[in-house]
Amino acid sequence: MAKYERLVKLVAIGKMRDRLFESRCQEFVTRLSSYGRCDIVVLPDSNVANEGKAILRELDRDKGALVVALTEEGREFTTAEFSGFIEKVDRRIIFIIGGPFGLDPAVKSRADQLMALSKMTFTHEMARMIFLEQLYRALNLLNGGSYHH
Amino acid sequence: MAKYERLVKLVAIGKMRDRLFESRCQEFVTRLSSYGRCDIVVLPDSNVANEGKAILRELDRDKGALVVALTEEGREFTTAEFSGFIEKVDRRIIFIIGGPFGLDPAVKSRADQLMALSKMTFTHEMARMIFLEQLYRALNLLNGGSYHH
Repeated sequence: MAKYERLVKLVAIGKMRDRLFESRCQEFVTRLSSYGRCDIVVLPDSNVANEGKAILRELDRDKGALVVALTEEGREFTTAEFSGFIEKVDRRIIFIIGGPFGLDPAVKSRADQLMALSKMTFTHEMARMIFLEQLYRALNLLNGGSYHH
Repeated sequence: MAKYERLVKLVAIGKMRDRLFESRCQEFVTRLSSYGRCDIVVLPDSNVANEGKAILRELDRDKGALVVALTEEGREFTTAEFSGFIEKVDRRIIFIIGGPFGLDPAVKSRADQLMALSKMTFTHEMARMIFLEQLYRALNLLNGGSYHH
């Protein structure tokens, strides 16, 4: 069993249209499963306000979880810092990635942590793939793996 | 003709093994061609020192160019800042992305600018794809396109 087994959930907006990125996302989710369960909840895209309401409803189903919202104004972590951040959390973590128009302010207020992947703007599909790769990298690092060198 | 027509070159190490990422890279290069020529030079992977020598030889062929090396300790740009940076450069720009083990210090010293895509560590293949998408995004922005909103 993995040393740091985690239950994480990723809440994202909109089905991925780019099949190549989707297949890479699936691949990282499969690899993540060595370290615990990673559920992905995809909510339908709409306007930012409606997407926000749907995200808040989803968060209300799991009130004990720590909520991390990905947004450009969030804190940037190095991979090692991100890994250390996850290590310190003693409960389920829910990560949120918005749609093309970003996250509703109500979701950002509800989050325990805002996090940025980069100062640069990525498409939300690319952000989803990059994030899952980083999550795999961070959990692999915590478990003493050699993926991150 | 594009308003800011650019001649850029990307020097990268190693053939891409991930065909999905390679196909996305090709796609961004094609889209970039609306804004000028973007040559990609792929040098064989080896050890960091040999890769460094090969990169320096490549740079010597084009001494008038501005050299930007991608490395984690470089400056982070927002997409708008990156676009503004490119706008100010009045000559050819050569971007360099190393292999899995990074760039030789001699290459970093030779560069006019060090640039980081993120604080996080990406695979060099993913970095190549992310970079090309950002370059397209920056040039589209300079040319008044609507890709970056």
